[in-house]
Amino acid sequence: MAEWKNLDTLDTYKKLAASDHRVDLKEVLAGEAGADRVKQYSVPMAGGLSYNYAAKQVDDEVLGALCDLAKESDLPGKFEELYNGAMINTGEKRLVLHHLTRGQLGENVVADGVDKREFYTNEQKKIAAFAAKVHSGEVANADGEKFTTVVQIGIGGSDLGPRAMYIALENWARANGSMLMDAKFISNVDPDDAVSVLKSIDVAHSLFILVSKSGTTLETLTNEAFVKDALVNAGLDPSKHMIAVTSETSPLAKSSDYLAAFFMDDYIGGRYSSTSAVGGAVLSLAFGPEVFDRFLCGAAEADKLAAQPDPMSNAAMLDALIGVYERNILGYETTAVLPYSQALARFPAHLQQADMESNGKSVNRFGEPVNYKTGPVLFGEPGTNGQHSFYQLLHQGKDIVPLQFIGFRENQSGTDVDIQGSTSQQKLGANVAAQIVAFACGKDDDDLNKHFDGGRPSSIITGDQLTPESLGALLAHFENKIMFQGFLWNLNSFDQEGVQLGKVLAKRVLAHETDGALAQYAALLGI
Amino acid sequence: MAEWKNLDTLDTYKKLAASDHRVDLKEVLAGEAGADRVKQYSVPMAGGLSYNYAAKQVDDEVLGALCDLAKESDLPGKFEELYNGAMINTGEKRLVLHHLTRGQLGENVVADGVDKREFYTNEQKKIAAFAAKVHSGEVANADGEKFTTVVQIGIGGSDLGPRAMYIALENWARANGSMLMDAKFISNVDPDDAVSVLKSIDVAHSLFILVSKSGTTLETLTNEAFVKDALVNAGLDPSKHMIAVTSETSPLAKSSDYLAAFFMDDYIGGRYSSTSAVGGAVLSLAFGPEVFDRFLCGAAEADKLAAQPDPMSNAAMLDALIGVYERNILGYETTAVLPYSQALARFPAHLQQADMESNGKSVNRFGEPVNYKTGPVLFGEPGTNGQHSFYQLLHQGKDIVPLQFIGFRENQSGTDVDIQGSTSQQKLGANVAAQIVAFACGKDDDDLNKHFDGGRPSSIITGDQLTPESLGALLAHFENKIMFQGFLWNLNSFDQEGVQLGKVLAKRVLAHETDGALAQYAALLGI
Repeated sequence: MAEWKNLDTLDTYKKLAASDHRVDLKEVLAGEAGADRVKQYSVPMAGGLSYNYAAKQVDDEVLGALCDLAKESDLPGKFEELYNGAMINTGEKRLVLHHLTRGQLGENVVADGVDKREFYTNEQKKIAAFAAKVHSGEVANADGEKFTTVVQIGIGGSDLGPRAMYIALENWARANGSMLMDAKFISNVDPDDAVSVLKSIDVAHSLFILVSKSGTTLETLTNEAFVKDALVNAGLDPSKHMIAVTSETSPLAKSSDYLAAFFMDDYIGGRYSSTSAVGGAVLSLAFGPEVFDRFLCGAAEADKLAAQPDPMSNAAMLDALIGVYERNILGYETTAVLPYSQALARFPAHLQQADMESNGKSVNRFGEPVNYKTGPVLFGEPGTNGQHSFYQLLHQGKDIVPLQFIGFRENQSGTDVDIQGSTSQQKLGANVAAQIVAFACGKDDDDLNKHFDGGRPSSIITGDQLTPESLGALLAHFENKIMFQGFLWNLNSFDQEGVQLGKVLAKRVLAHETDGALAQYAALLGI
Repeated sequence: MAEWKNLDTLDTYKKLAASDHRVDLKEVLAGEAGADRVKQYSVPMAGGLSYNYAAKQVDDEVLGALCDLAKESDLPGKFEELYNGAMINTGEKRLVLHHLTRGQLGENVVADGVDKREFYTNEQKKIAAFAAKVHSGEVANADGEKFTTVVQIGIGGSDLGPRAMYIALENWARANGSMLMDAKFISNVDPDDAVSVLKSIDVAHSLFILVSKSGTTLETLTNEAFVKDALVNAGLDPSKHMIAVTSETSPLAKSSDYLAAFFMDDYIGGRYSSTSAVGGAVLSLAFGPEVFDRFLCGAAEADKLAAQPDPMSNAAMLDALIGVYERNILGYETTAVLPYSQALARFPAHLQQADMESNGKSVNRFGEPVNYKTGPVLFGEPGTNGQHSFYQLLHQGKDIVPLQFIGFRENQSGTDVDIQGSTSQQKLGANVAAQIVAFACGKDDDDLNKHFDGGRPSSIITGDQLTPESLGALLAHFENKIMFQGFLWNLNSFDQEGVQLGKVLAKRVLAHETDGALAQYAALLGI
């Protein structure tokens, strides 16, 4: 059994914190030694990706200390316990099994009398069979016509991850003959969200997926009502246009309101559910079950690498360690994720949930306050767009923001244009390479307004192309990184008690059971 | 003439920094006094909006000190100099005239021999006349058919602001018969961005707007080539499908490649250009010139209020002062913008540029380093979506993140659904009211995992509905807030030297004039 201890009680951490050894990026990246460093400071990832940390403020001394920290914290042992079915989610007293949705890393995990790997695989098979029927027209609308559009109704983890994954593969699917249905997403309780999506589709040819683990999510049930109204107004039978993704114990599970129901369970957190039925249904319908399967394979391969005990060959663990070093030793407050790929436009929004909801906490897994910083604020937009937006602050602002770049050697659509001797894809790649060096090395100028300090750290994940496999690998990399950071900070990364209070107070407002400031704020909003 | 001095040299700032007086939000928002505070701590804004700061950590003492600071810093005087045409952009030696694109606050400003208000108004009139011809079919495609879609090609300020404004008014326009053309946007040099937009439209009925002040923006010219290829491949004449928005001195200005050209100038920064021809062309084509005019009126009204010398009746100035108090006295590092309106989905992305590119700087307007924090990292997503994502960290994370909520009493589409006794719009409003109180007041719980410290500050901007007027007011509010913060920090908020180094290095990569680390990074990206 792994020992769960606060970060600041570990000897290896205390040693790291006591050291004033610091790495000067300008120095280590200079000249031929700098070129060698870029070649060497690289770890292979799954899906043909690699993680390059040459522009991070680490060297052999710091890396050695981080490896010692990984060992003392027993990161490999904790991950092993997790995937073998220990109750890692101490707050809600639940297992944490999202890895099982895409592979079997350790022992068979039996919970509630069921082999869970079998359960998740079986749901996948059910989804694949249903998707095949939709694609073939065996499941069709009242006029016997094929469904052409799939609309996911869900919020949080039932929206951000699946939506980001769908956008990430849209261009790839178009170029590879895998674009079987368009997908849309309704999430916000703001009625204009549902109205706007419903206006953009042909409801008679649309299949809706209602996604709620509990079957009680306010936003999702409200939006379901919106959709049902639209179907009824179009003279259609809602129960012939809707499927549900939920838990077996939810009120939706056996309802006749749905054509079919597919299941996840309490061991899959919303923000880790893209590889479960939550992502599976919409992605299998949009791109076909084979594409979803390839996506799962990429994630499973990443999980296997994450189980390697040596951080120097485990990109997720190394990434986690460097992140903790930056947060707790170097004192950086925020972090930016900057994919140089328009397809990853919503990937930072997904990571915002995955990271900030998992590790944005102030008590450890035993409910005791911790005296060190935990998860940082995370934000990001695709490059090169961000370069023309907030990069000014990243280059010359008062705070140092560690950066996570992502870049590919080929685009997805296979279409490109050559202008002034280079393609758009080459311009994109040239920009990300340039940014890394600009941030790290800076540039001296007597006009201080044009001076760049440098010393701004970044890492980059690169690959040939964003495909189902590399996307799965990318997703699992960050999930595992977040998990390792939670282990280091001694947090329960799998509950989210911080979202409860707002829900309780909102219900009180709607029931008009308020007074004082809350009543006044409600009045301000016209309630 | 206003005196430009560093924040930390001002007596009123020193006094504020020396004080250990702090406001306890739980205390001040408790009971009937708390309800009164919510009623009183409110400033009317333009467009029927109001700014409520009852959940900010201020009281009469702090507010008094902030008013003194505004006076010593001469914020009203500096704004007056700006709108009367002083050379406020010291780095690039330029006037700062975006306010003139929507109204005349002070003296006539003559630059380059031209009355600038007249110049901007004239461009607006030209755009309105052109849009009318497109809408009537007088300007049509080769087959004499009306254009149905307008596509803006631009990046940074030529993309983020206009795109955010378009999305903000889409549902409103649909409900009010003002949806004249669909608009799309191509920005990223990633070829998949242009490919994806081009696949989603009918090029034969599309009008493209090329937006680049200099006429030399790499991304924009590359994407223009993409679009021209697509038009030629469809057997169409690109010059009959394109207009330009640029400066009069740019190579695009008099080119026969465009049906028409509309102008802005060097006195309009990209991130402040939504009210110039940059936003004017696309918004007038999409929604009609009258709607764009209403949007300008809202902004102009906000500018007038921003010229009020008393911060207590000047929401932009008060917001700026409270932000500086939070950044420099209370030490908060980031700030979140959380609109409870799906229509404002991309408003935070626009503000990221407006704010972080303006004030993410470490030297003052004279090029001297400053010893205090300047612009914070800004991020945000619409509520209630964010509640199911990163709010966990905002509620229970180790860092306090000041929050800017935005909420409306009515939705835009006029369609809603009643579930369990409340509409979706009411649920939306109830949630934002609940969040403000949850963040400020917290909740004690013996289980520390379920305990909320509270003390997390927010303000809220509320209004009846997001309309062209209130959107204009909202935009100008933040522009003016950022301007006042730049004055307080003694920055030049109107240049962006921090984006230059990356451009230079990217060119070097594309010319294969690299060695060392940069060459290795380029190789990683396949260049």
